[in-house]
Amino acid sequence: MPVILINGQPAEHISVLDRGFQYGDGLFETLRVSAGKPRRWAQHMARLTRGCQRLRITMPEPALLWSEAMALCAGKTDAVLKIVVTRGRGERGYAPPVPAVTTRVLSLSSAVAFPSLYYREGVSVRVCDTRLSGNPALAGIKHLNRLEQVLARAEWQDKGRDSEVAEGLMLDNNNNVIEGTMSNLFCVQEGEGGSILKTPSLVHCGVKGITRENVIRVAGAAGISVQETTLGLTDLYRSQELFLCNTLMGIWPVRRLGEHHFTVGPVTRQLSQALESLRD
Amino acid sequence: MPVILINGQPAEHISVLDRGFQYGDGLFETLRVSAGKPRRWAQHMARLTRGCQRLRITMPEPALLWSEAMALCAGKTDAVLKIVVTRGRGERGYAPPVPAVTTRVLSLSSAVAFPSLYYREGVSVRVCDTRLSGNPALAGIKHLNRLEQVLARAEWQDKGRDSEVAEGLMLDNNNNVIEGTMSNLFCVQEGEGGSILKTPSLVHCGVKGITRENVIRVAGAAGISVQETTLGLTDLYRSQELFLCNTLMGIWPVRRLGEHHFTVGPVTRQLSQALESLRD
Repeated sequence: MPVILINGQPAEHISVLDRGFQYGDGLFETLRVSAGKPRRWAQHMARLTRGCQRLRITMPEPALLWSEAMALCAGKTDAVLKIVVTRGRGERGYAPPVPAVTTRVLSLSSAVAFPSLYYREGVSVRVCDTRLSGNPALAGIKHLNRLEQVLARAEWQDKGRDSEVAEGLMLDNNNNVIEGTMSNLFCVQEGEGGSILKTPSLVHCGVKGITRENVIRVAGAAGISVQETTLGLTDLYRSQELFLCNTLMGIWPVRRLGEHHFTVGPVTRQLSQALESLRD
Repeated sequence: MPVILINGQPAEHISVLDRGFQYGDGLFETLRVSAGKPRRWAQHMARLTRGCQRLRITMPEPALLWSEAMALCAGKTDAVLKIVVTRGRGERGYAPPVPAVTTRVLSLSSAVAFPSLYYREGVSVRVCDTRLSGNPALAGIKHLNRLEQVLARAEWQDKGRDSEVAEGLMLDNNNNVIEGTMSNLFCVQEGEGGSILKTPSLVHCGVKGITRENVIRVAGAAGISVQETTLGLTDLYRSQELFLCNTLMGIWPVRRLGEHHFTVGPVTRQLSQALESLRD
């Protein structure tokens, strides 16, 4: 069982009148915990703040969240902290309550151990049938309406025929590749002046991951040019390197996408190392 | 406070690990209660069943839901019953738990009294800026991912400048009108062989309302031809009659849409009466 704080109090249950439960009216963050504290705190708080602004939910004080996070994380060397923020309780009906009292739920769970093979040789990835619908009002932020990801992730099982599949890619209604069910995507292509790192534009759908942000940052610092652009599956098939990333897994090279095979390339290796040596 | 049964037990709180709270991974139904029981039970159960099939959630036994509903509704002459069904508790991650144990939440709240003017003279409606994104995998069913409705409903307040606005219309990304934030939409146009009733096609987005279904049924029985089709705002502006419907409000004639004015017409009146005299 994870250890949970609801509005600062140890608890495991929330009102069924909470709009997080009624409508998915809220946001979340998943943080990696090491050496007794959550990593990349400022970046996660910045994204949560942007999400709250977009949904017009009152953002909890980051200092309050920090003190609650530290209470949960004390002494933990390796764990996962999830923060859920919702618009709080409301009566029936979509109209946001006035005033609304934001609900915050912090829960700590065990670290996830991924096979070292995933990092050394890369992962196998499938293309999901479930599409991501586009809505600029919801794109980029990490909100609680996650049925599309749930349906996409339900397309393959961890046992049997698909047991080696580690992640699924999701396309939008225009056949553009957007992201994995739980990760962002990058590809490396050869340009005139060297390697170019490309990642899908997330203006219409998708989640702007913290690790995606950091990959773009360390690539820039290493002099690798980065493009946020439109990418189809054929663009991926033609790439030299392909990798996925999120906060918990870091960078996973892709060794297989459907029937297409890739090797773990130098740019992926370089960025993985640069990411690991990032402070905070 | 509504009276609530969670998995058959009186309770007001649900596990924060419930996937309804974590991902909006579930469905709901809102039913009108009169004379001690919920109305249109079979139709609501049919839609809930279709939603469960689509999301691959194990549908609770309708007989069990019925007995719990009857326990809440006993002696109530006028109330609202909300049924929420979710995929139940899960660990972190989008993959549906195996096995999953469906959560069911039944809550009873007071009936909503709408102004009689709404029925006699019609309501004023605005056009929302927030769009409905399209995804056939989620279209038609009444799932818990309702952020688009929340954002649309937050565009106007019940006090001040917009106080007379009763509902907002939502368009998809192709400028097709789909529905209201909490209602379905019909328009009446003059055809060669008489009046034609038109309502937006809900293949890509929108909720297939029970009252929408019944309006189509009673119109058919009255010999009025019905089309589920693509409708833009200009199609609505050119219509003779316009009305909204849902389970709780029945039929609301529209008297104003933005700057366009309508009168309460004969087809709207006829269908309102036919709907009221439907059994069950």
